[in-house]
Amino acid sequence: MAVNVIDRVREQRPLIHHITNAVVMNFTANGLLAFGGSPIMANAKQEVAEVTRLSQGLLLNIGTLHENQVEAMILAGRAANEIGIPVVLDPVGAPATRYRSGVCQRILQEVKLTVIKGNAGELAHLVDQDVDTKGVDSTGEADAEAIVRLVAEKYQTGAVCTGEKDVGCIDKDVFVNETGHPLLAQITGSGCLLGSLLTASLTVEGNPKEKVLATLSHYGRAAEQAADHPDVKGPGTFIPRFVDALAMGAEK
Amino acid sequence: MAVNVIDRVREQRPLIHHITNAVVMNFTANGLLAFGGSPIMANAKQEVAEVTRLSQGLLLNIGTLHENQVEAMILAGRAANEIGIPVVLDPVGAPATRYRSGVCQRILQEVKLTVIKGNAGELAHLVDQDVDTKGVDSTGEADAEAIVRLVAEKYQTGAVCTGEKDVGCIDKDVFVNETGHPLLAQITGSGCLLGSLLTASLTVEGNPKEKVLATLSHYGRAAEQAADHPDVKGPGTFIPRFVDALAMGAEK
Amino acid sequence: MAVNVIDRVREQRPLIHHITNAVVMNFTANGLLAFGGSPIMANAKQEVAEVTRLSQGLLLNIGTLHENQVEAMILAGRAANEIGIPVVLDPVGAPATRYRSGVCQRILQEVKLTVIKGNAGELAHLVDQDVDTKGVDSTGEADAEAIVRLVAEKYQTGAVCTGEKDVGCIDKDVFVNETGHPLLAQITGSGCLLGSLLTASLTVEGNPKEKVLATLSHYGRAAEQAADHPDVKGPGTFIPRFVDALAMGAEK
Repeated sequence: MAVNVIDRVREQRPLIHHITNAVVMNFTANGLLAFGGSPIMANAKQEVAEVTRLSQGLLLNIGTLHENQVEAMILAGRAANEIGIPVVLDPVGAPATRYRSGVCQRILQEVKLTVIKGNAGELAHLVDQDVDTKGVDSTGEADAEAIVRLVAEKYQTGAVCTGEKDVGCIDKDVFVNETGHPLLAQITGSGCLLGSLLTASLTVEGNPKEKVLATLSHYGRAAEQAADHPDVKGPGTFIPRFVDALAMGAEK
Repeated sequence: MAVNVIDRVREQRPLIHHITNAVVMNFTANGLLAFGGSPIMANAKQEVAEVTRLSQGLLLNIGTLHENQVEAMILAGRAANEIGIPVVLDPVGAPATRYRSGVCQRILQEVKLTVIKGNAGELAHLVDQDVDTKGVDSTGEADAEAIVRLVAEKYQTGAVCTGEKDVGCIDKDVFVNETGHPLLAQITGSGCLLGSLLTASLTVEGNPKEKVLATLSHYGRAAEQAADHPDVKGPGTFIPRFVDALAMGAEK
Repeated sequence: MAVNVIDRVREQRPLIHHITNAVVMNFTANGLLAFGGSPIMANAKQEVAEVTRLSQGLLLNIGTLHENQVEAMILAGRAANEIGIPVVLDPVGAPATRYRSGVCQRILQEVKLTVIKGNAGELAHLVDQDVDTKGVDSTGEADAEAIVRLVAEKYQTGAVCTGEKDVGCIDKDVFVNETGHPLLAQITGSGCLLGSLLTASLTVEGNPKEKVLATLSHYGRAAEQAADHPDVKGPGTFIPRFVDALAMGAEK
């Protein structure tokens, strides 16, 4: 099953429009290409709706938010809703500032989302829960389950909470992924890239829960495989092997 | 001959001003450094003309175009024309939106270009031809030849159409490069980096056609060499080896 | 001594707010993570003061300066001064344009800096000295010493001049670091990353001079270690090994 979802992405090579943060653009583009999708990244309000209409999916990531980008995100989100393609929101750092929090609220009001993906602190913030953000990675599975249920219910969307275990909720169905590797937390943009891959998987046919779970599983196994490579001695050498591993199982 | 052009770049280490897209800045800077040039990347309208006047060449790449950048590109392009240094345009995604298409037209009207480098779909768009952009990579050599002739004629410039084979036209002379590797299409920014290297090569003495052809050939051979490395198992491990290979033949 | 400073960074994982250039964001974030710090990068004037107040240190780097960023840098710098956390300025390319030079002056007037880090040409410019910028790397140690003394005196700050040897001045005390490797000059952003690591080290307890010297030494030794790796054949393969080496000595 997992294999089928990823294979479909590779067959269809969905074009994913990213309005994302400047830190991770290059890594996200290379990671999505390896996974089997096709990245496009446009930010100008003059063209984001048009770019979205050419695309099969839209990812909104607020990691380096600025004024012009907010308007672009709303325009792109509305265009995506009009043509009925999946929209994923990654509310990076939403609890950190009133600005990010406010922009998230605006996006949540004006754009119908398919999946919201974040860590426990970010998702908890969206449903006014307190989570000790210092200890995000050790947030228990039970807490994560409660949070994704609340997010999914409140915003009528899928929710994915990443952490040592990833916990998702789609259509009131909660599921857990246990693949992954601690090196993912030692490089920048690993969560951001996952948002991009989830968007790509959501564009192909199939059951939403299975598509999300297959992607989480593939992503974590790619990290495990890369980390196990004898040449990987730290986060620097992990990155290229991880990108390679995202392509694992693809026919050459 | 090819060797001489690249050697001259390495001797002179031309400073190339890039106004380019945010996805590829880091990769482009590292690739140009390995090739033998020296990158500078400024975007503010307050300084782009001054930065251009310090430089030996200018690259304009519209991949993540935004409002302020358009004005910066025009100011930099005019400064480059005034001091007579080469200007290369990479019309990334020009057919995708009216905004990009319009900005390209404005640059083409206000700045005298040395070379326009793009894929078949992008170049065809500039001369109002239809190319099935889904099949860009399989655009025949005959089509590419027709397109570069039209672009070169219409805009009185050199034209380079990248693809499985690269086809160029300079001074009515058409030429083909056959080096390269499919992995170049599996990483982001490979075309963007080529635009940077072409700009660097155009700054040194010599016949324009020979300079462009030497650069295309070197670039493709570097990709071949990197892809053949036994440690390269996919796009992730290809990237560092490709950057290394761009420095091939350089004295240490 | 050196070990203790780096160990403290690793224990405390200080959150460092970067307002930095777009070329080096990803590399800086990954390098700081490997070193032991925690990067955050926000640019919007609406949130930079709030992000700074959450942080333990602030880095300002003007490498791809634009209008909105200037205001953000001043707001963040003032917030950092209010809460008393270290602020490091990297005046990238300050002598290149009147705009950069003017913005540097404005930052220097409105923000109290802990350390200014630059190459000889950049630092000399801040104290109205002439240095042949073409020969920056061969600026003699004596010149560098004179420059850091002038910068430290004029701006009542620490000063670090990078080059073949790094020369620093803190509290009228001049010191020299001799670790390093020529490959650092063949990749983009090596100086920018050093600014980030210095900011992180300045956040932990200890003597400022020792903290800076330990960081310079660690950085240079990491480059030496990476360059000596048998798989490193050029700048491309150097980068991942260098990031790995920044984590050297860390407990896993």
